Amino acid sequence: MRLTDIFQKIDSNHDRYVRELKELLAIPSVSTYSHHRGDVRRAAEWVLNHCKRIGLEARLEDTGGHPVVIASRCPHQNRPTLLVYGHYDVQPAEPEEEWNTAPFQPTVRDGFLYARGASDDKGQFFTYLKALEVILAVTGDLPINVKILVEGEEEIGSPHLGAFLKKNRELLRADAIAISDGSQFSEDVPAITYGLRGLSYMQITVQGPRTDLHSGSFGGIAPNPINALVSILAQLKNPDGTIAIPGFYDTVAPLEPWEREAMGALPFSEEKLKAYLGLERLCEEPGYSALESKTARPTLDINGIWGGFSGEGAKTVIPAKAGAKVSMRLVPHQKPRDIAALFTQYVTRLCPKEVSLQVNALHGAEPVLVSRDLPQVQAAVRAIHAGFGVAPVFIREGGSIPIVNLLKEVLELEAILLLGWGRPDDGAHAPNERFSLSDFKKGIRSAAALFFELHSCCCA
Amino acid sequence: MRLTDIFQKIDSNHDRYVRELKELLAIPSVSTYSHHRGDVRRAAEWVLNHCKRIGLEARLEDTGGHPVVIASRCPHQNRPTLLVYGHYDVQPAEPEEEWNTAPFQPTVRDGFLYARGASDDKGQFFTYLKALEVILAVTGDLPINVKILVEGEEEIGSPHLGAFLKKNRELLRADAIAISDGSQFSEDVPAITYGLRGLSYMQITVQGPRTDLHSGSFGGIAPNPINALVSILAQLKNPDGTIAIPGFYDTVAPLEPWEREAMGALPFSEEKLKAYLGLERLCEEPGYSALESKTARPTLDINGIWGGFSGEGAKTVIPAKAGAKVSMRLVPHQKPRDIAALFTQYVTRLCPKEVSLQVNALHGAEPVLVSRDLPQVQAAVRAIHAGFGVAPVFIREGGSIPIVNLLKEVLELEAILLLGWGRPDDGAHAPNERFSLSDFKKGIRSAAALFFELHSCCCA
Repeated sequence: MRLTDIFQKIDSNHDRYVRELKELLAIPSVSTYSHHRGDVRRAAEWVLNHCKRIGLEARLEDTGGHPVVIASRCPHQNRPTLLVYGHYDVQPAEPEEEWNTAPFQPTVRDGFLYARGASDDKGQFFTYLKALEVILAVTGDLPINVKILVEGEEEIGSPHLGAFLKKNRELLRADAIAISDGSQFSEDVPAITYGLRGLSYMQITVQGPRTDLHSGSFGGIAPNPINALVSILAQLKNPDGTIAIPGFYDTVAPLEPWEREAMGALPFSEEKLKAYLGLERLCEEPGYSALESKTARPTLDINGIWGGFSGEGAKTVIPAKAGAKVSMRLVPHQKPRDIAALFTQYVTRLCPKEVSLQVNALHGAEPVLVSRDLPQVQAAVRAIHAGFGVAPVFIREGGSIPIVNLLKEVLELEAILLLGWGRPDDGAHAPNERFSLSDFKKGIRSAAALFFELHSCCCA
Repeated sequence: MRLTDIFQKIDSNHDRYVRELKELLAIPSVSTYSHHRGDVRRAAEWVLNHCKRIGLEARLEDTGGHPVVIASRCPHQNRPTLLVYGHYDVQPAEPEEEWNTAPFQPTVRDGFLYARGASDDKGQFFTYLKALEVILAVTGDLPINVKILVEGEEEIGSPHLGAFLKKNRELLRADAIAISDGSQFSEDVPAITYGLRGLSYMQITVQGPRTDLHSGSFGGIAPNPINALVSILAQLKNPDGTIAIPGFYDTVAPLEPWEREAMGALPFSEEKLKAYLGLERLCEEPGYSALESKTARPTLDINGIWGGFSGEGAKTVIPAKAGAKVSMRLVPHQKPRDIAALFTQYVTRLCPKEVSLQVNALHGAEPVLVSRDLPQVQAAVRAIHAGFGVAPVFIREGGSIPIVNLLKEVLELEAILLLGWGRPDDGAHAPNERFSLSDFKKGIRSAAALFFELHSCCCA
């Protein structure tokens, strides 16, 4: 069987793969720092050349910011195409003094490769290049078509990716996209992330008197915008923690029995989480577990509030203005635009008549839910099972991933395969970031298996 | 009648009085600026020498900060003593470019004397020196005993006055204190301020998770301290604007019928106030007029609130902490310490159990109410009637005056005569501060009359 040959070859090439990855990790491609602009470009060129070397057509594309590497090999007109997304830029390494070995001197210790970007995301997207290389070496061909998109601005919010995708929509057309830029559920529990929460981020500003007033002279008659603001905000949630905005839950798709069962079976410790957060109790939604509440149920949080005097001591002011930022995490089938409208309608109704209110929608993101019944998802299940030796669990994540929304929307993709090869404690964005060499190998295996599984499932 | 002679002499000396006041006003005794330290001392010495020149025993007293001028003339062992309080320091003049004439080049224009300190407080306390001078000139004696206390740190919060008063409690003992450092109710409506609100200023801090969290990863299970804070704060007031803290109103002395009648008769325009504040409606306490609500009823205002992200854009954080400053204006017989305890008890009860709460009392001030039935107050009524030609109105002020609490408490004085000679639009603390020359003259007359009236009422 070809996969056995391929896995064997992956094992025998392992040390070379690690050496190559170390080369890439040694380039400090910190996208946020202008003094690293040259390094960022150097990393892009390294990826470009590597793609060419393994037999892909590849080029750098200018975006207005850091370049995108585009590579492809599409030999089969009637077979499916997999688009692979990754990013070659990294977070800053500060505080560098907290690293045990220098962040850009990749070092192997106890089965882990330590370096900034090891897990996020150089080590993870590199698995696909190694998988392609080994398939081509062993079979002389690819079972399906492949397109590679590796950007250099993920860590700064992908400011140029949207425009780039729109311009290259046809070029990037695919039947599925694989993104390995996250983690397994926990060590040796590989996962497919099939759900992401969406977001509706609002700002409200309350205006009282035209100017700040002395609370001695005007307290008792001047409407206080902070008092008004807290009275509005306090009515956003019910005493049991559920959200009081009328209609908020109307479009929420109920959790399916299999999901609740799957989540209930995950090795999740509330006690560990409470210890980590320094809390005596969590505040789950009534009727839902902690894991369900934090990943699969909608929320409302006040993310910021301000008004009046916050310095040391006592200043007796009635401020002219006060404001707050409020965000709601959304789940299918809530639409950010509809939720923003319900929010606006509700707070407008709550606003005491003696002050005036301004409501702004600052940001919105659609929730994402990928059906596990899609053949591409089932192909990923089998690929991970082959690569890791255990079947993946299905998980939902509480946050949104902006590039996922972008890719889904612009490229009109349903089959989004979020296959994190890392671990929650890899230290992405933190000192001593690392990537398990065992995960690296399993990731390459799974990536290789995925090409074959996508061929089997979609060309039957 | 002697008072007629005295008033006549005040009229004929008017120009000289203005010239002398201009000398004092020309000294930039800005107490908050260390580079004006020499000027502040020069002003103290000017007052000292002036007191001596008009026939008082006088000296400078060191306080650790700017000096206090102490002057007295106590010829009658069995007659009452009036203590006069004033301050020779002034606010900074910035923004100087907004002054029509230089702040320390006193200038008469259209019946007003323009200069920093003209109304607050050099021009006002100077009326007592001129009154004493003229009484001594006309009668060769004083009808009662007088003590003068003029400090140089009022505009920076009188940091050394408390210690000074405690050390000189016996020296300053008096039967009444006159303070002219405020204003009439409005032009040609002289007033006796018989009530000041007190203050209880609290700070509350709510702690949620031990560190800031990402609202995507932890929203739905992590207790949000801002949400908890607003739920607490929103319950401090009832929907009708009254204060919901149990027991808060228990010790509030009801407004007496004469007070409500007096306040109702004052020339007070809600329309003007609304226009000034830029508001369509005021929020009076139910059952009370705007004037009653802002001067004679207790209040609760949130003076500041903070927590999480208040910058531009959207940051999805659940902060570890949030806090607020809340102050309550108090009226007799509310005690700041008791109110602070009721507040603490109530918010502790309101605090959701998944977060922790810290409550601190930052500042307290007793409410002040001076009985209009005191003979000294009735003496002041007659003195103002004589000096201004109309009887004064009785008013309460919404703020506290820290030096009043200090003087009342340390010197154990009940008869506190708050007799503002200025006008609300004198521009104290603002550019183009001024003092009406007509008010200056009426103030001197009233001050002179007060000495005789205190003699009549208390030595009958």
